[in-house]
Amino acid sequence: MTRDLSALDDLLDAADADAYCIEAGSADSNQLYLSGFDAPDPFFTAYTGDELAVLVSGLEYGRATKEAHADTVARLSTYDFASRAASEGQAAALSGVYADFLADLGAESVLVPERFPVGVADGLRDQGLAVDVDHDDVLETARAVKTDEELDAVRRATEANEAAMAAAEALIAEADVADDGTLTIVDDATGEETTLTSERVQEEIEVTLLRHGCALDETIVACGADAADPHDRGSGPLQAGETIIIDIFPREKASKYHSDMTRTFSKGEPSDTAAEWFDRTHEALDAALAAVEPGATGADVHAAACEVYEAAGHPTLRSDPDTETGFIHSTGHGVGLDVHELPGLNPRGGELEPGQVITVEPGLYDPEVGGVRIEDIVIVTEDGYENLTGDYPVELVVE
Amino acid sequence: MTRDLSALDDLLDAADADAYCIEAGSADSNQLYLSGFDAPDPFFTAYTGDELAVLVSGLEYGRATKEAHADTVARLSTYDFASRAASEGQAAALSGVYADFLADLGAESVLVPERFPVGVADGLRDQGLAVDVDHDDVLETARAVKTDEELDAVRRATEANEAAMAAAEALIAEADVADDGTLTIVDDATGEETTLTSERVQEEIEVTLLRHGCALDETIVACGADAADPHDRGSGPLQAGETIIIDIFPREKASKYHSDMTRTFSKGEPSDTAAEWFDRTHEALDAALAAVEPGATGADVHAAACEVYEAAGHPTLRSDPDTETGFIHSTGHGVGLDVHELPGLNPRGGELEPGQVITVEPGLYDPEVGGVRIEDIVIVTEDGYENLTGDYPVELVVE
Repeated sequence: MTRDLSALDDLLDAADADAYCIEAGSADSNQLYLSGFDAPDPFFTAYTGDELAVLVSGLEYGRATKEAHADTVARLSTYDFASRAASEGQAAALSGVYADFLADLGAESVLVPERFPVGVADGLRDQGLAVDVDHDDVLETARAVKTDEELDAVRRATEANEAAMAAAEALIAEADVADDGTLTIVDDATGEETTLTSERVQEEIEVTLLRHGCALDETIVACGADAADPHDRGSGPLQAGETIIIDIFPREKASKYHSDMTRTFSKGEPSDTAAEWFDRTHEALDAALAAVEPGATGADVHAAACEVYEAAGHPTLRSDPDTETGFIHSTGHGVGLDVHELPGLNPRGGELEPGQVITVEPGLYDPEVGGVRIEDIVIVTEDGYENLTGDYPVELVVE
Repeated sequence: MTRDLSALDDLLDAADADAYCIEAGSADSNQLYLSGFDAPDPFFTAYTGDELAVLVSGLEYGRATKEAHADTVARLSTYDFASRAASEGQAAALSGVYADFLADLGAESVLVPERFPVGVADGLRDQGLAVDVDHDDVLETARAVKTDEELDAVRRATEANEAAMAAAEALIAEADVADDGTLTIVDDATGEETTLTSERVQEEIEVTLLRHGCALDETIVACGADAADPHDRGSGPLQAGETIIIDIFPREKASKYHSDMTRTFSKGEPSDTAAEWFDRTHEALDAALAAVEPGATGADVHAAACEVYEAAGHPTLRSDPDTETGFIHSTGHGVGLDVHELPGLNPRGGELEPGQVITVEPGLYDPEVGGVRIEDIVIVTEDGYENLTGDYPVELVVE
């Protein structure tokens, strides 16, 4: 992936620091973005403005020389790690090796992100390096604005996501309703009628995503009271007339970029309250989307959703910071290498910029009623936004 | 999951610290183990010996009160986070909130793991707290010895893993060999002959795992030169007569515990060199397994594998720390909430204890030949080990 490190160059200049350093595996998206190297165990990356250097284990050395965005690839054995670890212990040996590596790069003062490991930071300080923390996370900020290549990856993940949503919706549509309201389907393998559970729908979603080149850690298929908790993944039988929140957030395996979307369904007619919630949430979605444009802030977009809910008498975290019912989360977040990243559509959300990818996902929750959430994923454009999931219908009732 | 925090109690006593703190999401396995709470975004956990307290966002509060192993669940709004973030910025506000939370617990000095975020650690220090680093990772050390409940989770993940390995092997067995040596299979959907690729086998593995309640980030199906790099995931057509390394490391979704196993296959007869490597690796596996017992060290087990290879004239990292061919990784690692965790079977590996789960996975690599690796996963028992994957055949040639 191409990426833009100019903000990092500016930060190093402004802070008068010699290098920006990350020590993490590629599950840390700043590490993956900066180094371009995908490896499970922690490795060390230093960017001086002129040079990007990575320091890896011997196991990763060959692959790093081929795959990392690095001018220099070094390995632990060059700095005699094994014998130092035997005499000093692993933590001290690593800090010593990193300090020597930085000395070879001519770096005496470094900036590190907020989540840089304190053990390593203190170890470098013990070796005489100045280690300061970049509290504003320059790389996550830079990552928020995507290149065309990154946007294409998000588009592909979104296509897979819509296919998975359609597969889930089709299962609910095909289901029959038992006398007690439980949804049932005919098992393909046995030909027998079985209960349709959250887990069965999750499996359908996950298999569909795999067939489309995507992986995911988890999926939310939450019905009834489960749906009243925005992060409950859901379990057990699905019930007719209850809201079923389906929130899918896959990662394209090849690129590691995510998508994210949510729809809420009811098999047959829901309660009047749930129907009213759905209409209000659709209205909040439209109001929030209408506020998305460059120069508007994430706070503005969040306020637009809050206003719709508050006008209809629903509590929000703005009207009551301790509320456990109503609109109890922010309106959205950036999506990229992380499924939750900058920018935030919350009271602290800053100015939106073209090329950012954000979710817009208002919702209402109450254990007495269930939950409703509708989430689109959009790209901020020069004059507004492009809704990547705007063609997927927003319809509550599945017959 | 049940877990044993007695080592943490001892450490707090020995270090005369008031609390052990973690600030991370549940992707950090120490956080998941200590807090028992599965949430994607970072939250704060403090253990005083008498009390386990977690501090979460409002979004996670309801679920945390139900799911966390916590005596106390607090939320950011109780400490006025939103208005502090508006005036001080998010990083300073979080540190201030955490400091107030620790004050309510009576904690003035805290221990944190090596990978605790330096931004938070420095913030707490600025608030007057003493923050020291636990370089020995007491929780990862404690996690290495599993309870019966944890072992059952690993057993279930292993059963899924064996099913996925069998599905992959069956695809290779069913394949035909084209004139140029490429493997081909008949596509179920179209009835047409298509090339059998690493990606197709990976998909089969991943779908099988999903059907067995497991997820995974990635799978290695590496053929030919790809197999010569132990962390190359493999891509493209599979070839007859070349070694195909299949390394599967799923996580059971419900418990979050992993398994890990590897087999190497050749469709039809491989080269004499590959066949010799396979026999030597099988011998190294047996020698390493024979060394596994309580009181033996990870270093002993690693040495047993190295000796087999070195006696046969293959380079190892012990005989040449810079070698890029031969046996170029350690002999194994612990498996649990992380797929790579303590104990290590490497030159620094300490004494094995009953209840530890380890992989034993010798291998040989050279781009001119390919790669061979055989990996079993075993539980260290009172008098040796129980091999969880020992019933899966170790056979190179698939006809």
